[in-house]
Amino acid sequence: MSRVAVVGLGLIGGSMAASLRRAGHEVRGFDNLAVRTAVGMERGLIDAEAASLEDCVGASEIVILATPVPVILSLLPSIDTLAPKDALVVDTGSVKAAVVDMMGHLDRAERAIGGHPMAGTESSGPEVASADLLVNRTFALCPSARTSRESKDRAAALVLEMGSLPAFVEAGRHDDVVARTSHLPQLVSTALALCLEPDDRALIGPGIRGMTRLARSDARMWTEIVYLNRDSIAEAMRIFSRHFEELARTVEDEDMPALCEAMLSSNRAVAELDAGLPA
Amino acid sequence: MSRVAVVGLGLIGGSMAASLRRAGHEVRGFDNLAVRTAVGMERGLIDAEAASLEDCVGASEIVILATPVPVILSLLPSIDTLAPKDALVVDTGSVKAAVVDMMGHLDRAERAIGGHPMAGTESSGPEVASADLLVNRTFALCPSARTSRESKDRAAALVLEMGSLPAFVEAGRHDDVVARTSHLPQLVSTALALCLEPDDRALIGPGIRGMTRLARSDARMWTEIVYLNRDSIAEAMRIFSRHFEELARTVEDEDMPALCEAMLSSNRAVAELDAGLPA
Repeated sequence: MSRVAVVGLGLIGGSMAASLRRAGHEVRGFDNLAVRTAVGMERGLIDAEAASLEDCVGASEIVILATPVPVILSLLPSIDTLAPKDALVVDTGSVKAAVVDMMGHLDRAERAIGGHPMAGTESSGPEVASADLLVNRTFALCPSARTSRESKDRAAALVLEMGSLPAFVEAGRHDDVVARTSHLPQLVSTALALCLEPDDRALIGPGIRGMTRLARSDARMWTEIVYLNRDSIAEAMRIFSRHFEELARTVEDEDMPALCEAMLSSNRAVAELDAGLPA
Repeated sequence: MSRVAVVGLGLIGGSMAASLRRAGHEVRGFDNLAVRTAVGMERGLIDAEAASLEDCVGASEIVILATPVPVILSLLPSIDTLAPKDALVVDTGSVKAAVVDMMGHLDRAERAIGGHPMAGTESSGPEVASADLLVNRTFALCPSARTSRESKDRAAALVLEMGSLPAFVEAGRHDDVVARTSHLPQLVSTALALCLEPDDRALIGPGIRGMTRLARSDARMWTEIVYLNRDSIAEAMRIFSRHFEELARTVEDEDMPALCEAMLSSNRAVAELDAGLPA
């Protein structure tokens, strides 16, 4: 069992802490918001609360950086100095190219790897963190060119211990794919919520509630994510617009065979996504 | 307790039958697909299976038409003749103006009312019907100008017996609102599913899974619904496009303050939707 340092005790950091603690590791938590470490202690997500970044990572074997991405980028150089030489550093940011590029330039480049648990929800904070959040979820692992084979193995073992499914993927490719599978759905949900009128609440069914769930997400966190992956997201948005405008054309032109064909194609696309995925 | 005839034993008809049977009514079911009535009997959704439309509605006090909307339109004149004079006729179609207009011209116009339980899911068929599907769901009731006050009361009582929440709304207004709250989310989910590439399945999180759930819906049923409400839907799609294109502009222009402001507005829009809704 290892000494694990978790920096950033939001939904993801808190959930990983709880999961690794449940697996028997000794988890030390730090957050620059003291209330979050307090909640982490109270809810049993962490074994101990650190008074500073150095106190958190100074004696660790594994360091998990679970802050917003801009903070990960600003913390990496300090972590490189403060954490023991042989400690493995893994982050959890939703955008990977910038993080993994910086990791490749650290002194500990061999023992640093990008990570992204595909487990976020519209909620945030340690109050809703749970050891079960990561179970059966894909956990992307993005090595830099300098990440050692041993570090990849250690990271994959860590992911498996949390019940997640490691998926190794190049950082740039990760950012392209999540632009479609995570960032685009977020912006589509946002746009859909903006279409609603106050009086519409009289006629609300499960469809719209599910489709606007993501529109509850933290606006500032998402603005940062979108900025960091703006090129891939802009391209994903153009692709979506093309499909949506073609659907709108079928409605305007009363071209029902084309609409039905598009809906059947989308049936098939979702069925393909299901193939091989845990429920 | 009443004798209830349910015509059309899909997800909605089967669920209403089960709910009304649980409430103590005697439910007689009919579907032109014999396998559906068989499943209805096997799963205890109905008390008895009728051999024909006449056999189903001939001795009923309440008739529920839960077929696709085009079939409702073609059945209404026959029901008007076949059902007892004092029987109340309620339909469950997702588009109301055409149905309620025809209801207003029936001999039994005083005892006919449009209905729409806002409880559909991406699944269909009596295999997944459940008495609980309608609990705490809004059930729109759309009277014609000739529907009597007594019929409105009978319909509202029926809805309450199923645990649903009756919402009286004019049929044209209903169709405008559901274009935004039900039909637009369906088409947005369809367009989103069309953006996915087969290899994307490696990096799938809960966000995209939730946002493409509706893309599994029955393509032919939805093509009919879209056709019947095409004007309101075309307008809802134009509104969505404007919001989505403005979000895309903020990404292209790196206008992050405007993006954050839009996301905060969508946070508020969803919070307003929640106000007063059962969980």
